[in-house]
Amino acid sequence: MDLVWQVCYLENGADTAYIPAQVPGAVQLDYARAQNWDDHCYGTNYLQYKWMEDAFWRYKAVIPALTLAADEEAFFVCGGIDYAYDISISGRVVYSYEGMFTPVEINVSAFACGADVLEILIHPAPKREGADADTSQEASQSCKPAVSYGWDWHPRLIPLGIWENAEIIVRKKKRIAQAELRYTLNDALDIAHIRATADFTFAANGTLSLQLFDPAGCTVLETSADACGMNGTIDCTLAIPLLWWCNGHGEPNLYTYRLTLTENGETIGIAEGRVGFRRVRFVMGEGTWADGDAFPKTRNPAPATLELNGRVIFAKGSNWVNPDIFPGTITHGTYLPLLQTAKDLHFNLLRCWGGAIVNKEAFFDICDELGIMVWQEFPLSCNAYADSNAYLNVLDKESQSIIKRLRKHPSIALWCGGNELFNSWSRMTDQSLALRLLNKNCYELDPLTPFNYTSPLYGMGHGSYVFQYTEDTDVFGAIQAAHHTAYTEFGMPSICASEEYLRSFIPADEAYPLHDTPSVAAHHGYHAWMHPESWLYQNTLERYCGKPADLADLIRQSHWLQGEGYRAIFEEARRQKPYCGMALNWCYNEPWPCLANNSLINYPHVKKPSCDIVAAACRPVAASARIGRFQWVAGELFAAELWMLNDSYDAAFTGTVRASIIVGGVIYPIGNWDFTLTPNTNAVGPTLRICLPETDEKSFTLCLSVDGAPEYDAQYTLALKK
Amino acid sequence: MDLVWQVCYLENGADTAYIPAQVPGAVQLDYARAQNWDDHCYGTNYLQYKWMEDAFWRYKAVIPALTLAADEEAFFVCGGIDYAYDISISGRVVYSYEGMFTPVEINVSAFACGADVLEILIHPAPKREGADADTSQEASQSCKPAVSYGWDWHPRLIPLGIWENAEIIVRKKKRIAQAELRYTLNDALDIAHIRATADFTFAANGTLSLQLFDPAGCTVLETSADACGMNGTIDCTLAIPLLWWCNGHGEPNLYTYRLTLTENGETIGIAEGRVGFRRVRFVMGEGTWADGDAFPKTRNPAPATLELNGRVIFAKGSNWVNPDIFPGTITHGTYLPLLQTAKDLHFNLLRCWGGAIVNKEAFFDICDELGIMVWQEFPLSCNAYADSNAYLNVLDKESQSIIKRLRKHPSIALWCGGNELFNSWSRMTDQSLALRLLNKNCYELDPLTPFNYTSPLYGMGHGSYVFQYTEDTDVFGAIQAAHHTAYTEFGMPSICASEEYLRSFIPADEAYPLHDTPSVAAHHGYHAWMHPESWLYQNTLERYCGKPADLADLIRQSHWLQGEGYRAIFEEARRQKPYCGMALNWCYNEPWPCLANNSLINYPHVKKPSCDIVAAACRPVAASARIGRFQWVAGELFAAELWMLNDSYDAAFTGTVRASIIVGGVIYPIGNWDFTLTPNTNAVGPTLRICLPETDEKSFTLCLSVDGAPEYDAQYTLALKK
Repeated sequence: MDLVWQVCYLENGADTAYIPAQVPGAVQLDYARAQNWDDHCYGTNYLQYKWMEDAFWRYKAVIPALTLAADEEAFFVCGGIDYAYDISISGRVVYSYEGMFTPVEINVSAFACGADVLEILIHPAPKREGADADTSQEASQSCKPAVSYGWDWHPRLIPLGIWENAEIIVRKKKRIAQAELRYTLNDALDIAHIRATADFTFAANGTLSLQLFDPAGCTVLETSADACGMNGTIDCTLAIPLLWWCNGHGEPNLYTYRLTLTENGETIGIAEGRVGFRRVRFVMGEGTWADGDAFPKTRNPAPATLELNGRVIFAKGSNWVNPDIFPGTITHGTYLPLLQTAKDLHFNLLRCWGGAIVNKEAFFDICDELGIMVWQEFPLSCNAYADSNAYLNVLDKESQSIIKRLRKHPSIALWCGGNELFNSWSRMTDQSLALRLLNKNCYELDPLTPFNYTSPLYGMGHGSYVFQYTEDTDVFGAIQAAHHTAYTEFGMPSICASEEYLRSFIPADEAYPLHDTPSVAAHHGYHAWMHPESWLYQNTLERYCGKPADLADLIRQSHWLQGEGYRAIFEEARRQKPYCGMALNWCYNEPWPCLANNSLINYPHVKKPSCDIVAAACRPVAASARIGRFQWVAGELFAAELWMLNDSYDAAFTGTVRASIIVGGVIYPIGNWDFTLTPNTNAVGPTLRICLPETDEKSFTLCLSVDGAPEYDAQYTLALKK
Repeated sequence: MDLVWQVCYLENGADTAYIPAQVPGAVQLDYARAQNWDDHCYGTNYLQYKWMEDAFWRYKAVIPALTLAADEEAFFVCGGIDYAYDISISGRVVYSYEGMFTPVEINVSAFACGADVLEILIHPAPKREGADADTSQEASQSCKPAVSYGWDWHPRLIPLGIWENAEIIVRKKKRIAQAELRYTLNDALDIAHIRATADFTFAANGTLSLQLFDPAGCTVLETSADACGMNGTIDCTLAIPLLWWCNGHGEPNLYTYRLTLTENGETIGIAEGRVGFRRVRFVMGEGTWADGDAFPKTRNPAPATLELNGRVIFAKGSNWVNPDIFPGTITHGTYLPLLQTAKDLHFNLLRCWGGAIVNKEAFFDICDELGIMVWQEFPLSCNAYADSNAYLNVLDKESQSIIKRLRKHPSIALWCGGNELFNSWSRMTDQSLALRLLNKNCYELDPLTPFNYTSPLYGMGHGSYVFQYTEDTDVFGAIQAAHHTAYTEFGMPSICASEEYLRSFIPADEAYPLHDTPSVAAHHGYHAWMHPESWLYQNTLERYCGKPADLADLIRQSHWLQGEGYRAIFEEARRQKPYCGMALNWCYNEPWPCLANNSLINYPHVKKPSCDIVAAACRPVAASARIGRFQWVAGELFAAELWMLNDSYDAAFTGTVRASIIVGGVIYPIGNWDFTLTPNTNAVGPTLRICLPETDEKSFTLCLSVDGAPEYDAQYTLALKK
């Protein structure tokens, strides 16, 4: 049953006027609503929220009068409160905690007369003593996601409040308190050894039954065991389980189970859930053991290739960030279109980056259903999280809550300590106790899912996030010169999806031409990252595309570079298979409208044109060209090495690729290549060359067409200059 | 009280004739003694032991008649049994275990009438199913040290039996079962927060008292607490503890403590022990955060520099291996001279390599006393230890026993999963559950001592183990071209210490000239490592030194190359400080007489001449020359860059180095360098050059002499050719 919440901030320790509160939500949104503020996403409106991060806030709600039967009890149940808080009932503190990822349950049976008030005192956002003010360093002694302290695509805006469902629930005193179904698969993957466990709220003396239903809903297993005492266990086996497969490799088969506790024929409790049978490993890419033969020898690279159900999977995907500044507003409906699009882009892996929140259950439910694997990081990013006992204590509890909640999801393919922690800007090391603690908790609670300390590990590559790397090198050349086991982050900036979208959050007087004005900078157009031109990089656009005619032209230029840049990286990473096992661009989505950044999708779900190009680059089977650079000179000799990319274990056929260029509407054939494709193996063809015509055109198109199979065709739009 | 042991092997499941057994010892040694066999170290005698590894063996001893008072009980207590075994009393199995590092205690009070027989059935040496026969792969599913399955300096000879003390002990029923003193130091290192804990065998109702004595024996702390129940705890603080320092940096201060349990004024139990207060960290070397700026970025190197009590220590030392094939024969007297020599060589760190046993207590006691830090590996080496439940279960117990036993020693500076596990010849990875388990156990039981998965980690260098690297490159050039955070293994082979020593284990007809004959090969003269000439490498000796006149000349040549080779590496590693934090040669000692190998000391404690050179290279302050190669041509321009190496935090002075060469007894001055030395910082001087005289001499000497301070002088003997 829902509660009617109010909230206020405290001034000198005293409550100010209470305002209606939306739960789940955030105190900032409640306050803004009460004040009739404009959208925080518009212009620089977010700045007025700054003071709120340092205030205490108090929620209150009357516990309703309940008529509880003798065999019933009432609980206040909440999925998560952000961030540090004390819960009181009628003035007496009953529970205090630090951390947003651990659910709360409080027995309120004694306070259900309609007169008692539940209060939750929210502490100010945590800030490490000694940290540089208003930087994400402030997050480095807490489990508060660092991103909200300010990032190159996230304003400084730190949500606080009840961010998951909170309600009063009346339950039978005698019930199943919690249940879980765990399994291991034999080496041949044709037998699942299942252990179902249930904890009871009382000493049972009955029977625990398990029913297992296959993806079609048919009962495939029914068994039961005596349940005497506070818990019950059922061990059984399922022969030839339908395995859970990721996108592009099979069906994401999900079974459902029902555990029923009965005593003397009476049903005492039922627990239900889903299970996907899969075995996931993080293995060495082919050839990575051959690295580094010279003495003195250092180690070989760390594993960076996913193996699902015994099959090596080339992981294609992206870095998922929080889809809203305020996680309390996120629902199933927030996630669904974003994840459906990820599937449409042929993605099979999302890296849930450690700077952001650990997502709500709906995210993982949908990933389970769509066959999208999840690389899940703990909330550590780009900081030196020091080994203080206070921090380790919070991290211990929060990480256990996260692992226990998520380990049931077959989509969870990899645990990871956090983002870029072993790099110079973070300065954590293999010795950091926080990371060793996370290893311990993952080992104890979910040992068969891989665990990494951080990304990148030795051999993996992160970055860069530019189209032009050096005076002479663009992203085409840079990625071809790189040699990594996985590309776990690579960015390609662009302006937002459309002029209309831009004008929805940038005031008219700042909209064009774009300069380093307050709203443009706030929405990451300038000074967002290391370079003052980031992320708009109008200088780069002008270098490759010339001066834009207008805003629409600027947007067209920007999308062109983002699209071809992302295509160049995704396809080259695939060409480096099997040494390379992974290509994840930075980033997929964004938490508010970014004027410019590296995302594929604008907030909340507005696709940039590069989505179509990335989808093409990630097709299981696709023609591809290895092209040395983006910009060519009219009259010079153009060269492209032909490839057929193949991540499919089913695709094996022969065919012919015909290559041509189109310049100014004229088609110039370059040559053909007869290829033979074998499963999950790329084929490399000849390098074809053609002299580019003398022309004033600013671009030309390389077309690869596959005889009789246009679904594998590819087109590259490249820059031309005189 | 000692037991009188007998042992026999089993044939078709039945005991053969019992023979006297020495405990601690090994079944092989008992059998050889009974058969009057010659020394297993001589020639190829070890071959006749081969069958014993596959036999079951049974020890037996009569439990003596004991008159136990009502408040007493008797225990069979044993420090360790090698390897898998069942303990029976009068035919009934009372205990079974796999693993040599976990002590055993069995209450035998009910069997102390003089008629009961204690039997220990020793299982055959463990061998992984499917492993290549007679290779160290066989050790990869057990905690049996891999070295005894055959190594390039260890014969195939797998000890079995009772390898630690075993006795009957009568104890009071009411006693302290175990006690421990743990501490943490504050950041300023001037307060030790001490927690003393004691577990009792009964529910006490008395007082637990703690006395702490400083290194001079003076009482510095006395306190007590109520002890009610099965255990007692005392928390207290010690101000300004004298810290434990390693060799070269201060005194290895050791305190002693006494815990006394009293009830009603009566002393019930006393536990005593030692403690050294120190804080050890594994940190990033200066400059290592600046590595790898190019995009895509991988991680920065792993930490490889020790920090002791807030002071960065350049670690100089060696790789310690088992000092005997049969660990049961090792005593305090085995360790003491070896460790005293390590101190004399200015070593401050020994890496106890994962292929060998975890040493007995005496080893760590002496290291504590001498200020030698220990890098302690678990028993994993050069294999893929797979994630089977059976293996993980053994490793879990054995590693816990090891950590709990050793964590009290201040000398324990680093835990490490094992040797070369992340390299292509081992093929374990960051995902290996065995390593994640070790990380977890170290975190839980000894979190403040650093832990590494293996060596080398990214940035560290292992190898090589040759004088000549390529046609054009010797070790001088190779190490100068290397750039590592630590040199954790580097070898330089030589023949054994002397002709007399050689003739003590090589039959006369094989002694000279040395060919690939059975005893020469068995003692690692040929085909020991990757190259057929290893470890004698007579071809290398001839290349640099010419044909030897006789055995004595061959030995002289070999020691010359080993000495100058080791000097080149130790000094160059020191020159690469502070980026580089460590120089550990492979290896220090050996378990039996090696005709040739990389050790500094022959079995059991016979120093090779290179010991003196390594001692000189490791002096806290020393003149040094960076010389591009070992062999020079008469008449060419010789060059040497002058250095003053300084690892001392006390040394700060100015001085003058005078460089000269001596060729055929004639001194040729090259030049002088006025240097200024600051604490713990090397000084680099000019490169001096001189034209080498035309001469027929085969060597010349570079002399560096420091005015008024001959203790810093250095001499290099280099090769000359026409």
